[in-house]
Formats: sequence, structure tokens, C-alpha cells
Amino acid sequence: MTPNLLPALTETAFVLVLALLLLAPLALAGLALINTGLGRSRSAAQSLLGSLAIVGVSVISFALVGATFASSAGGASHTFHMAGNAWNWLGAGPLFLGGFGTASAQAQLGLLFQFLAVALAALIPWGSGADRVRLMAGCAVAAVMGALVFPLMAGWVWSGGWLAQLGVNFSLGSGFQDPAGAATVHLLGGMCGLAVVWIAGPRKGKFPQGAFATAMPGHNANYILFGCLLALAGWLAFNLAGAVLWMHAPLSALPGAALNTLLSASGAVAATFAVTRIRFGKPDASLCANGWLAGLVASSATAGIVTPVQGLVIGLIAGIITPLLVEVLELAVAIDDPSGAITAHGVGGLWGLIAAGVLAPQAGQLVAQRVGIATLLGRALPLVYLLFWRVDRIIPLRVDPDGERIGMDLHELGGGAYPEFVIHRDDSYR
Amino acid sequence: MTPNLLPALTETAFVLVLALLLLAPLALAGLALINTGLGRSRSAAQSLLGSLAIVGVSVISFALVGATFASSAGGASHTFHMAGNAWNWLGAGPLFLGGFGTASAQAQLGLLFQFLAVALAALIPWGSGADRVRLMAGCAVAAVMGALVFPLMAGWVWSGGWLAQLGVNFSLGSGFQDPAGAATVHLLGGMCGLAVVWIAGPRKGKFPQGAFATAMPGHNANYILFGCLLALAGWLAFNLAGAVLWMHAPLSALPGAALNTLLSASGAVAATFAVTRIRFGKPDASLCANGWLAGLVASSATAGIVTPVQGLVIGLIAGIITPLLVEVLELAVAIDDPSGAITAHGVGGLWGLIAAGVLAPQAGQLVAQRVGIATLLGRALPLVYLLFWRVDRIIPLRVDPDGERIGMDLHELGGGAYPEFVIHRDDSYR
Amino acid sequence: MTPNLLPALTETAFVLVLALLLLAPLALAGLALINTGLGRSRSAAQSLLGSLAIVGVSVISFALVGATFASSAGGASHTFHMAGNAWNWLGAGPLFLGGFGTASAQAQLGLLFQFLAVALAALIPWGSGADRVRLMAGCAVAAVMGALVFPLMAGWVWSGGWLAQLGVNFSLGSGFQDPAGAATVHLLGGMCGLAVVWIAGPRKGKFPQGAFATAMPGHNANYILFGCLLALAGWLAFNLAGAVLWMHAPLSALPGAALNTLLSASGAVAATFAVTRIRFGKPDASLCANGWLAGLVASSATAGIVTPVQGLVIGLIAGIITPLLVEVLELAVAIDDPSGAITAHGVGGLWGLIAAGVLAPQAGQLVAQRVGIATLLGRALPLVYLLFWRVDRIIPLRVDPDGERIGMDLHELGGGAYPEFVIHRDDSYR
Repeated sequence: MTPNLLPALTETAFVLVLALLLLAPLALAGLALINTGLGRSRSAAQSLLGSLAIVGVSVISFALVGATFASSAGGASHTFHMAGNAWNWLGAGPLFLGGFGTASAQAQLGLLFQFLAVALAALIPWGSGADRVRLMAGCAVAAVMGALVFPLMAGWVWSGGWLAQLGVNFSLGSGFQDPAGAATVHLLGGMCGLAVVWIAGPRKGKFPQGAFATAMPGHNANYILFGCLLALAGWLAFNLAGAVLWMHAPLSALPGAALNTLLSASGAVAATFAVTRIRFGKPDASLCANGWLAGLVASSATAGIVTPVQGLVIGLIAGIITPLLVEVLELAVAIDDPSGAITAHGVGGLWGLIAAGVLAPQAGQLVAQRVGIATLLGRALPLVYLLFWRVDRIIPLRVDPDGERIGMDLHELGGGAYPEFVIHRDDSYR
Repeated sequence: MTPNLLPALTETAFVLVLALLLLAPLALAGLALINTGLGRSRSAAQSLLGSLAIVGVSVISFALVGATFASSAGGASHTFHMAGNAWNWLGAGPLFLGGFGTASAQAQLGLLFQFLAVALAALIPWGSGADRVRLMAGCAVAAVMGALVFPLMAGWVWSGGWLAQLGVNFSLGSGFQDPAGAATVHLLGGMCGLAVVWIAGPRKGKFPQGAFATAMPGHNANYILFGCLLALAGWLAFNLAGAVLWMHAPLSALPGAALNTLLSASGAVAATFAVTRIRFGKPDASLCANGWLAGLVASSATAGIVTPVQGLVIGLIAGIITPLLVEVLELAVAIDDPSGAITAHGVGGLWGLIAAGVLAPQAGQLVAQRVGIATLLGRALPLVYLLFWRVDRIIPLRVDPDGERIGMDLHELGGGAYPEFVIHRDDSYR
Repeated sequence: MTPNLLPALTETAFVLVLALLLLAPLALAGLALINTGLGRSRSAAQSLLGSLAIVGVSVISFALVGATFASSAGGASHTFHMAGNAWNWLGAGPLFLGGFGTASAQAQLGLLFQFLAVALAALIPWGSGADRVRLMAGCAVAAVMGALVFPLMAGWVWSGGWLAQLGVNFSLGSGFQDPAGAATVHLLGGMCGLAVVWIAGPRKGKFPQGAFATAMPGHNANYILFGCLLALAGWLAFNLAGAVLWMHAPLSALPGAALNTLLSASGAVAATFAVTRIRFGKPDASLCANGWLAGLVASSATAGIVTPVQGLVIGLIAGIITPLLVEVLELAVAIDDPSGAITAHGVGGLWGLIAAGVLAPQAGQLVAQRVGIATLLGRALPLVYLLFWRVDRIIPLRVDPDGERIGMDLHELGGGAYPEFVIHRDDSYR
């Protein structure tokens, strides 16, 4: 009934996963830098200080509250009965990480993975809300994600929860599979970004009346693109650690998973490069960065189970849809997502999860993937929206117009990220 | 009599420690970037070139001279007899790393750890002396640290020296314990920073006559905050490698040590965020970075031995005292430490070492910790001050006033870090 | 006849190499950042977007075409007979990485290593062509390198090709040895850089008629120097993984290899610091970065086989020749290589390969090294020049003069890396 029960790891697998998890902060550092580069210079310090604080807050809230619900496989859980089966819908682990030291080594690694994953997930909506969401609100959102939203999802998917049980209970393949966070980190993070953007609204001047949307280029292309290269190392670590922890991949499958991660990012950046070059006449650096990320995100669902050529094609497709969807979201739906995270993480994750279902050898896997995705979109998205809406009533997400005008740095920190540089403020659209 | 003798590592532990040590340069890169960001734009290139040179010089001087005194456990040593016991007070290893290739694998890893640790320690005072200490003087300080100061301390603490022998010889717990450099790297580095600042004096205009101290914000908040995220990966590596090498921690204790490192940094940044927000009305980005670092430093003494909740609380306390002490040092004691390293590394280390004594299950551990701390403050600090004072007589630490006015970059390198950017020089306090 | 056949790795060695390879992207990120910092601000976004695209393109072309020729040891190959021996001159592996999943774990790791190595090699000429080579041309060059140039060399050196067979077939030591890419990545990359610079020509204004060469300092010294620290971690990973994969080094030799890498970089930066200080009166930050890199590159040939003191001396010599050769190339040969890659990677690699021959205990090793170097200089360089010349006919390497004047960013991307910063354009030499 708990199909995802962690098998005993060999000592070799244990040290590998442990070493990999220590690389995961590179994904945090890379993503934080990408977010900052895609925002405006007048919000740069707030963006990165927010990232540091959000890592801290999400980790603390997960430690004190969330880890209880996420409950590692094999631990206690709340169950309900339906269709003749017992379903695990909420973990019931000890409070405050009690007993962490005496848990099995595998359970400890699983929790460590989740700590790093929750911090990564919490950084995603922060990028979407750049240039207008307040620090305290960003921290509150991170606290809600760490205490409730992420653990719920992680429990369902990774710790033998009901989505993982779809395989055993309903013969749907191996149950919903999310080896390295395509759903639990990225799709969830993208949805949180969408909710934040819906509630906070677009930046001032982004969608002027009776005119096209204003292009607001990121203030530092180097941060964006360098962040992508740094994130690659972090993603490789997440993908391989996840494959061992949540898919029980044998060690011999891991070089292939690493190669697929690399191929997926490579295919994606090449495709976005080509698409934007064809569409706009010149390649677009920010969109290429988003494409690269989408390729990495898609690989988080597929790296461990596909062939290299499939990995490459998954990346190519991710790289094709990313620039198109960013444009649709911005122009057709009037979503102002400075970081492009809703597309890169949300849609990239969605695509990876579907591809994993299509390419899986097990019968019924695609159905399991669809159930998981439907749950995220149908249950988690409304829940997230409701929770963040509630947060907004207590701690308004959006800065007041005056603060937005002078910039988040000056307003919230009293000083900018670049006090000695002369900044040229193109304020035509303000 | 040599209680810290390295036990034979299993092959699994060996490859883990080796892989971890290769992550340690991320701590160097992160710290160097933090130092640069906290300095002024007119010293940025000098700061980072200095960091590269200081890594080089400290590594070379440790290789040619220092490693002999640091002498790895089980190697030859100079001893003295007191109170009926033999005390090891100075290593007597081979010169020039002779026999490195035939030493035990554990001894090799121990030395590799020390090479990375000495480079990290040498970067700390460089940050404190930012904007006025000359490149050659910085290198000389690094050479003294690598050849004499660090190895002395490392030998006493990690290689079965007399501080480590306090347990066996005097039944003080397990002897002075410093699993990952809270004393030997950070407290020592902070003291070296203090000595450098004392000798070099404050930056011009920092403490104007009859007025409050001038705020001199770091020139690039992004470098500071991004450096913090990068440093996290390096710290995780140091903490886990140190736990295995110097505390003989079983592999199963390592996920907990990693989690504690993360929790300590998280608690610290959250606490500093809250304290500075309450105190100044707005959170302070530089102080939050210092808080984060202090949390990491405190974890270097405690990560391997405490529970997660204890790790979090240790971080919270580090994060509370950091902003207060930075202010005290600056306003009450008129210490001009641009990087805040004296507090973040020095006081963070102090706090971690005490916490490790308080929370240790062994009787007498707190006394052992106090003896170690007293030795550092009472013996090492005067020694360091004397040595650096001597250096200053031969190679003046401080640049001449004209050099300080035009900036270290132009004065020492003939050009700035940002030759194409327009820099706004707020020179009101110069 | 296939002397380099990969021996079966123990599971411990397997996980170590795998973990190390996941660190290798740090070398990519560091090198890309160095390249960008050494270029001008008006080309910064193009430089880093190009790096991302070049990683993608080289990986894809190697996956689809090159890997076939590189063919891992023990795989099928085309052979010719000469002097009574069978010589392997071209791999004949399956197309499109077919059978990757069923190859031996060692063969998989070997290919993964080569994927990361080809991306690193492809970044090198991109730095040399900075500020004037077009994105599409840079991608075309990367495609040629990934599909043909690199795999040819990798097959000869690492996969039991004829250069590796020199030992078995002609009793020349252990055959040509290149443990971590000093030849296959760095010397080859440096030669590709030379070919690109020859074909594309110098930047406008670099060599004015009847006057000295114009100094064009890199636009961001911090990127350059921070990139060096980051690259250290990546290099450690490459050197140790290569030692296991291509030299069958026992695990116990690896701490020494890591130490040598660190000592070589340290010696090199100290030497370049001293040389430039003596020569120009002030140390030169860019040249010190190049010296550091040259030390790392030299260690890629020697780290696994020398003593620590030898490693230090190898670095010192690399650091002495680097600034001198950069000057010779620029002033005497009128080579405009903004990144200094031809010297740092090319000459650094050359020096390391020779040192490895001199210091090797096997008889004939120096001759084998010379044959390998002669092959690279005499065969690979003309081939590369011819191929790139051909590329240039189809996709001109060099931007048109108007594009160069306004900067690569504006010309190729339609916007700069720093849209909100005021850039000071010293165009006296334009």
C-alpha cells in the first residue's frame, strides 16, 4: 500500500546521493541570479535578499511544520478508504523533525532532498512577482509553501501518498511519477507564480491602455545566462539524486540520466535560439535562458527513463514551446511574469510529466501522469490561489504605487544594489 | 596520546570526503565575491585579484613551510612533558610535503582539507582590510598565515596536538573540538581581520571628527547575496568532510549534519532580517549576508553533533548577535571592518564553539572548548598581532593617502574593474 | 591493440567519477564568465548567449555525429595496418548514441566525460573571437568541433586510437597520454582559437597603422577573476575523473592529483603576479587570470603523475611563460585574442604535455608526447584552419564593420547586456 517505500540503499548509493544533494544549492544560486537579472536594476538587491530570506523561511517552515505532513515513506500517515483500497492522503510524521537522527539513512536523505526542493520551489514565484511583490509578502508566500503546499504535494507523490499509490491500487503504471520535482517543484512553483501574478497584478506600465505590451528587458543579461550554466550543475544533482531516491534507479542508469539532462538543456536552448531568430529576426537572450530552463525542467521528469535521442527531442520541444507560450501569456492573457517562470517551470514541468507518461513502458503510466497533472491543476492551483489570496489580505503582496515608482530597493531596503553606478532610468513607460 | 589519530577510512568514506573537498572551492569563490561586493567599486578588481593571489600564496606557503608544523596525526611531532603527560605542541613532518604520495589515504585527505582551509582562512582578513590594505601586504599576511599561524592552530586542534589531547590527558570531554574550522579557520581568520584593521586603521572618512560613523555601503549587493548562496555549497562540503576527518563521524550522521548546516544558515538569515527590520525599519542586505555567514560559521562547530531544532536555534542566535555586534564594533569600538568578517567569522565561530561545548554529551567538553577559545584569544591573537605588526614594518599594510583617494584599483593595478561603466563617486566623506 | 580499454571500475570508483563529472559544468560556467569579462561591455550578452548556444550545439553535434567517431574504447573502429601493427584511426560506434544504455558503465562514463569536454573545448575559440565573431558562425564552429575535430582527437587519444597505441605498437612509454584534456580539450581549443583569430582578423582599432597595439581591457575584472575561482572546482573534477577514466589511476592517487591541481594554479598565479609586477610596475589582473588558467591547464596533463613540488614548479613555469607569450602574440605576431585563450589553453596545454613526458618514469614517454603534440600542431591545426575557413565561406565568421562599431549585442541581439547602466564608450580607437 506504500509503493514508494524507500528500499535500503547500498552504502555506495548513499554517499553518491549525499554528495549530489550538496551540489543542489547551485540550482538555488543559479535560479536566484536568473530571477535578479530578469528584473530591473532598481529591484536587484531586494530580489536577491528576498531569495536568501525565502530560502531561509521555506526551510524553517518546512522543518517546523511541513515535514510532518510530507512524512517520509514508511512513516505514519492519515489514510482514507475508497474503492476497497486504503489511500494515504496526509503524512503524520513527528513534529519538529523529531527522531530525524534515528530514522533510516534513506529517510534522512529523502528529507534532505525535500528541504532543498522546497527552497527551489519557493524561489520560483518570487521571480514571477519581481519588481512589485514586497519582501514580507514573499516570505509569507514562502512560509505557506514550506508549511503546507509543498509538503502536501511531496507527500502525495514521493512518500507513498495516494498519487504514488495509483499504481498499486488502480494498476495505473507505477503510479504518478515525478523523479526529480518536475511536478512537485516546478509545476507547483509555476502555479504559485501564476497565483502571485494574478493577485499582485502586472507591473505599472506593462500593459498600457490601447497599446501593445511594453517590453521590459532584464537589467543584466549576464546574470541570466551565467545563472543558466550554474543551474545545470544543480539540476544534474537533483535529477540523479531523485532518480535513486524516488525511482529506485540502479546506479548504472545514472550516467544516462546525466547525459539526458545535458541533452535536454542543449536541445532546448538550440530550439529557442532558432525559434526566436526566425520569429524576431534576432535570437532573444532572455527567452533562450527560459528555454534552457524549460529543457532542464522537462528533464526532471524524464532524464532517468528515456534514451539519449528521446532526451534531446524532449528538450527540442520544450525549447520550441517556451518562447511561444511566453508570448501568448504576455500578449493574449496579459500575464506579467518577468522571470518567465510560469512557462519555464510550469509548462516545462507539464511537458516533461506528459512525455514521461507517453514514453514509459508500463501500461497505464500516461493515465497516472494525467491524474497527477489534473490534481495539480484542479486541486493544487485553486488551493494555492486561495491561500495566497488570504496572505494578500493580511500582508499585501503588492507594494504601493509610490514604492513601485522609486523601485523596490529604495522603498524596501533604503538603498540600491549598485550605489556607485550611474543608472539610466528609461521611465518612458512609467 | 594522539587521540585524533585518523582511523582507517572505508573506501566509501574516502571517495565521499574526496568528492566533498572538490566542492570546497565554492566557499572560496563565494567568500571572495562577498568581500568584493562589500567593498567600494574603486577597489573591486584589487579585491578579487588579491583573493586569487592570496589563495595562491597561502597554499604555497603552507605547502613549503606550514604543512611541516601542521603535521598530520600520527606523524612526528615535538612534545613537552607537563603534569605527567606528554603534550604535542608542534608537528615535525617532512619538509616540502615529502612523502605525501606514500602517506595513508586518510592523512592525504587531511592535508588536502587543510590546504583548502588555509586558503579560506586567509581570505577573511583580506575582506576586513578592504579599500586600504595593499596587495603585497595582503599577500604577506597570507604567507604568514599559511606558513605559521594556521598550521600552529591546525596542529593543536586537528593533528593530535595539545588542545586535542585535553580529553585524553586531562579528561576534558573529547578534547577541544573543531569539526570543520569554526576555530581554526573562522575564529582565527576573524582575529587576523581584527589585527589587520587595528594596524591599518579605518578608511579615510569612516569616523569623522565629532560626527557619527559614515555608512559606506558595499558597491554591489548582488555579489554579496549571490556569494552567500554559493558559499552554502562550499560550507556543506567543509562541514561534512570535517565531520568525517576530524570527528570520525559515521556516514549515517552526515545527512543530519547537512540539514543542520542548512537550518543554521536559514535561522540566522531570518533572525538578522527580523532584527534589522525592527531596529532600522528596513532589513539590511549586508547585515543579512553577514548573519547568513555567521550561521554557517556557527554550524561549522556544531552541525555534526546537534539535533535539527538545536541547529536552527544556534542559527537564530547567531543571526541575532551578528547585526548587534557589527554595530557595536563600528560605533562603540570604532573598528572599520567593511566585510563584517570579524563578527561573522570571529564571533560566529566563538558562538559555535561554545554551543558545541554546551550541547555535547561528554562531561568536561565545555571546559575543553573554553580552554581552546582562551588559547585562541589569549595566545593566538597577540601572536597574530605581533606578526602582522612586524609585516607592517617591512611591507606597510596601508596604502598611502593619495592611493586611497583615487582607489586601490587605479593605484595598484592602473585601471578599474569596470572601465566602461560610469561610476558615480559619492565623495562627500572623503 | 587497444591499450586504453577501460578496465572494470569498482562501484566506488564509478560513483566518484559520476559525482565528479557533475561538477564539471562549473568549468563551463567559469570559462564562459571569464570570456565575457575579457570582452567589451557592448558584446557581453552576445558572449554569454553564445556560450550557452555553443554548449548546446557542441553537445548536440557530438551526440548525433561525433560520438560515433570518438567511439569508446573496446568499441568497433576503422583500422589500418602499418609497420606490422594494426592502428585504430577512427571509431565506428553506433549512430545517435544507440546502445548507450546497454554499454558498460565505464563506457558510459567515458562518453559523459567527452560530452562535457567537448563543450569546454568549444568555448575556448569563442573567447578568442570575442567582440567580432558572429553568433551563427560561433555555433557553426562549435558544430564542426563537436561533430568532427574533437571526436577525431578524442578517439586517437582516449579511446585506444593510434596515438594511444604508440606505447603498445612502438614501445613509446604508455603511448600518448592526456589524462584530462590538456591536448584534446585545451591545446585543441587553443588551436581552434588561433584559427578563428587568423580567419576573423583583429578587432577594429586593435593594431592601428604606425602605432603600438591598443590596449583593450576586459570590461569586468570581477567576472574574470571570480570565473577563475569557479573554474578551479570544475578543473579539479575534470582532472580527477580523467585520471581514473583514462589513466586508470587508483583511488589512492587522487588526493595527490587534487593537491597538484591546486598547487599548479597557485604557483601560476603567483608567478604571473610577480612577472607582470616586475615588467609593468603593477600586476595585471587579466594576465594573472590567464596565468591561473594556464596553471590549471598544465595540471590537466600532469596532476596525476607528479609530486607536489613538481606540480608547484609546473605551475610556476606556466605562470612565467603566460604573460610573456601573450605579449609576444599580441605585439610581435599581431594576434588579437581578447581572452588570451591561445596562450592560456594552447601553450598551457603544450607545456603540461611536455612536462608529463619529461617527468614520466616510463622510457619513451617524452617521444610519445612529442608525437602527439606534433600530430596536433601538424595535422589538427591545418585541418581546423581548413574547416573553419570553409565555414567562413558559408557563414562569415566576422561581423560587418557597422555591426562591430555598434557592438555585437545591439547588432546581433537588438539590445545590450546592461540596458539600465550608463556605459562610457571610450571610442578613441574605433
